[in-house]
Amino acid sequence: MKHLLTAALPRDEAIALLDLAEDMHQIQDRDVKKLPALRGRTVVNLFFEDSTRTRSSFEIAGKWLSADVINVSGKGSSASKGESLRDTGLTIAAMGVDGVVVRSGSSGAPALLADWIGRPVVNAGDGTHEHPTQALLDAFALRRRIHGADASRGKGLDGVRVAIVGDIAHSRVARSNALLLPALGAAVTLVGPPSLLPPPAADGTRLGVRAETSLDAVIAEQPDALMLLRVQLERQAGKVAPSPAEYITGWSLTDERLARLPKAQIMHPGPMNRGLELSSRAADGEASTVLEQVTAGVSVRMAVLYSLLASDQGGSR
Amino acid sequence: MKHLLTAALPRDEAIALLDLAEDMHQIQDRDVKKLPALRGRTVVNLFFEDSTRTRSSFEIAGKWLSADVINVSGKGSSASKGESLRDTGLTIAAMGVDGVVVRSGSSGAPALLADWIGRPVVNAGDGTHEHPTQALLDAFALRRRIHGADASRGKGLDGVRVAIVGDIAHSRVARSNALLLPALGAAVTLVGPPSLLPPPAADGTRLGVRAETSLDAVIAEQPDALMLLRVQLERQAGKVAPSPAEYITGWSLTDERLARLPKAQIMHPGPMNRGLELSSRAADGEASTVLEQVTAGVSVRMAVLYSLLASDQGGSR
Amino acid sequence: MKHLLTAALPRDEAIALLDLAEDMHQIQDRDVKKLPALRGRTVVNLFFEDSTRTRSSFEIAGKWLSADVINVSGKGSSASKGESLRDTGLTIAAMGVDGVVVRSGSSGAPALLADWIGRPVVNAGDGTHEHPTQALLDAFALRRRIHGADASRGKGLDGVRVAIVGDIAHSRVARSNALLLPALGAAVTLVGPPSLLPPPAADGTRLGVRAETSLDAVIAEQPDALMLLRVQLERQAGKVAPSPAEYITGWSLTDERLARLPKAQIMHPGPMNRGLELSSRAADGEASTVLEQVTAGVSVRMAVLYSLLASDQGGSR
Repeated sequence: MKHLLTAALPRDEAIALLDLAEDMHQIQDRDVKKLPALRGRTVVNLFFEDSTRTRSSFEIAGKWLSADVINVSGKGSSASKGESLRDTGLTIAAMGVDGVVVRSGSSGAPALLADWIGRPVVNAGDGTHEHPTQALLDAFALRRRIHGADASRGKGLDGVRVAIVGDIAHSRVARSNALLLPALGAAVTLVGPPSLLPPPAADGTRLGVRAETSLDAVIAEQPDALMLLRVQLERQAGKVAPSPAEYITGWSLTDERLARLPKAQIMHPGPMNRGLELSSRAADGEASTVLEQVTAGVSVRMAVLYSLLASDQGGSR
Repeated sequence: MKHLLTAALPRDEAIALLDLAEDMHQIQDRDVKKLPALRGRTVVNLFFEDSTRTRSSFEIAGKWLSADVINVSGKGSSASKGESLRDTGLTIAAMGVDGVVVRSGSSGAPALLADWIGRPVVNAGDGTHEHPTQALLDAFALRRRIHGADASRGKGLDGVRVAIVGDIAHSRVARSNALLLPALGAAVTLVGPPSLLPPPAADGTRLGVRAETSLDAVIAEQPDALMLLRVQLERQAGKVAPSPAEYITGWSLTDERLARLPKAQIMHPGPMNRGLELSSRAADGEASTVLEQVTAGVSVRMAVLYSLLASDQGGSR
Repeated sequence: MKHLLTAALPRDEAIALLDLAEDMHQIQDRDVKKLPALRGRTVVNLFFEDSTRTRSSFEIAGKWLSADVINVSGKGSSASKGESLRDTGLTIAAMGVDGVVVRSGSSGAPALLADWIGRPVVNAGDGTHEHPTQALLDAFALRRRIHGADASRGKGLDGVRVAIVGDIAHSRVARSNALLLPALGAAVTLVGPPSLLPPPAADGTRLGVRAETSLDAVIAEQPDALMLLRVQLERQAGKVAPSPAEYITGWSLTDERLARLPKAQIMHPGPMNRGLELSSRAADGEASTVLEQVTAGVSVRMAVLYSLLASDQGGSR
């Protein structure tokens, strides 16, 4: 693996990454959370979009591997002075940086950067395209719930039925999960208002998987996990898409719907709009994996950085 | 001590902290300012309000103890996207962070956070409520001035008379000092315009101590230390409180008033409005402890982080 | 050397710094880019102006020398609350910081700071005054191109003819290069529209060197290097100075002009406005030193920080 641009990973490679993340996860139980693996390596977090949560998770992952981590935000950067993405990337690479973690509002920016700079690039979310480390941490947390933490290694998510609910069309989280989870053997169903589903392919699938509009119908099927996507209130201003009230009526995991899902894992990438995507009872109940997903995020990102930067090809150029 | 939320510390505990800060203070004389004590521990500086000064002081304190320090500002964070304080705190804790230093505009936010997250929390200033590390650094700097740097250990501030001058009602610095300094044996007098004093209790005290409105009368008593609070010009816009000119007339430490205080220590938490709270002669004279307070800030914060994170209960959860 | 405030260095001192930067440059070929030299030293990057590029370069340089690096931006700092530069500097010094790297919009601010704080100060760009590390990295990259990377040590730029093109009057990069390059033996010609040249001295020189208005005439002389300055589009709004179209006609390194310079090195401090200061062919061709300048920046800044902070006088105060 030279970059992590997409969650479209072969099953073996995905499982190997999740297993490596299990190794990294053990650090959470230690007093001294520090491995020497990336000592003397430098990682730049290049964030053109604000995301304290994802940036902090990558920063912690890098520092626990003993890397030097440099945060570069879009605001105030050369990019904001009109420099092209290519020149920004080449400049960062020319400083001797070993890897770049990039968050961008432009779909495809990380892949372009990877082509240009000849250094490992991690996609930390690009436009409405992909967010592969989010899908990996979702898979990691879910795999632990399904198989148990001690028996997860080497396993996929075969036969696990996952429903992803919300604004599918604009969600890079949905897109990356629709790629990764099926590769691990899961059956994914996308659920959302018709206006927020991506267009169907010739075979009727959307993003390559099944799509439905009725959350209640999908709940009746008793999926093993329900993943609620964040409603991007800031994006929806002035759109005709369902109003918050309509959204709650049709697609919120209310207490009432939660009661019909006694065995499902409840997932959310955060930050949550409590009362909109899901009720507080759903967010805080034992079925909720929300905080386990956050913890998994650090472990998965450690595994990704380690894979890209500690290997031979990452070491010298 | 599990958290540092308030300056209302028992005398013994406060003196023990100040003595530990004396140990940390010795690092200032070294070429290599680095102790291994918190290696492998991660501290988040969660600052919902801008405060480069306090944030930098905590960042230096953490790094000199070899901790990994992650800065999270309110702007651009999940909190700014509508996430609740509780969810923000739980998310940070779920990343495996060992301690959280929090600055917030909301009085009480650090205490709530401490309840929620099960990790040591340090209050770095909350609304108009408290700023305990500021009171500790004030006590540290004053104790050194009163007893001498070499003879401070184990001592309190018994019989030391301290006047705190300014907008007492809205000052978390005044509030924390009014709690800590008396516990150390000092006699505190609050001085300010009537409109900027907090309401009196049934026994006539304010914040549990004596309050006066005439700075000149208090100066006549020859206090051992005069602490000038920062006038929050930004908060005062459009208020009926004294105008800057009235403030200077009544409550500024002018050159003329300074001449009447030949033996008092002159303190200020910074940043100073020279010419408003105090004259430049007062700020820069030998009696001024202003820069010693800044230096003390790093030592005190090292002591606090060490106490909370290097002890057994902080180590594993 | 106690501070680096100006590029007006004696030849011997400049060559010694460039040679030390050559030592530091070797780190670029290593897997583990980390020297222990500044372990336990703390450097503050005090940036009153946004400059991710320069700040990141200094941050990497400090971290590769194992220093603790604290970033302080003007926004949200005490300075933005009305604190004087002197008080901001004294406060930072009082925290026990070993050195301060300062970027300011005010010409002369770093020199004032150096007078006040008694710690090594590095000028990372001040107003329209100077940017000495930029001139040093330019000299470093050019020296390598002229003499070859392996044969540069100990050498100056004797007889090398450098043309600097653009808004000379407002460029701290031009000013620092006009001081440093002649000290190294180079012959510098400034080229720009009459409205953007600094006023001439009594002997007809500008900034102590020759100035011309016709780029084409200077190109006919076949200089060894052409340095294109960034056009500060943001500064030019509403000015009568040449319009972008006029600028391109007279002073842009177009493909056509590039063809008339078969042997010159093409330099630019970045970020580039492609199509304005120079064509993409000029920016990306083999003659371009743009990315080598960026790489040199880290090496030169490591050399500067090492010189100021690892020496005896920097160690204790």
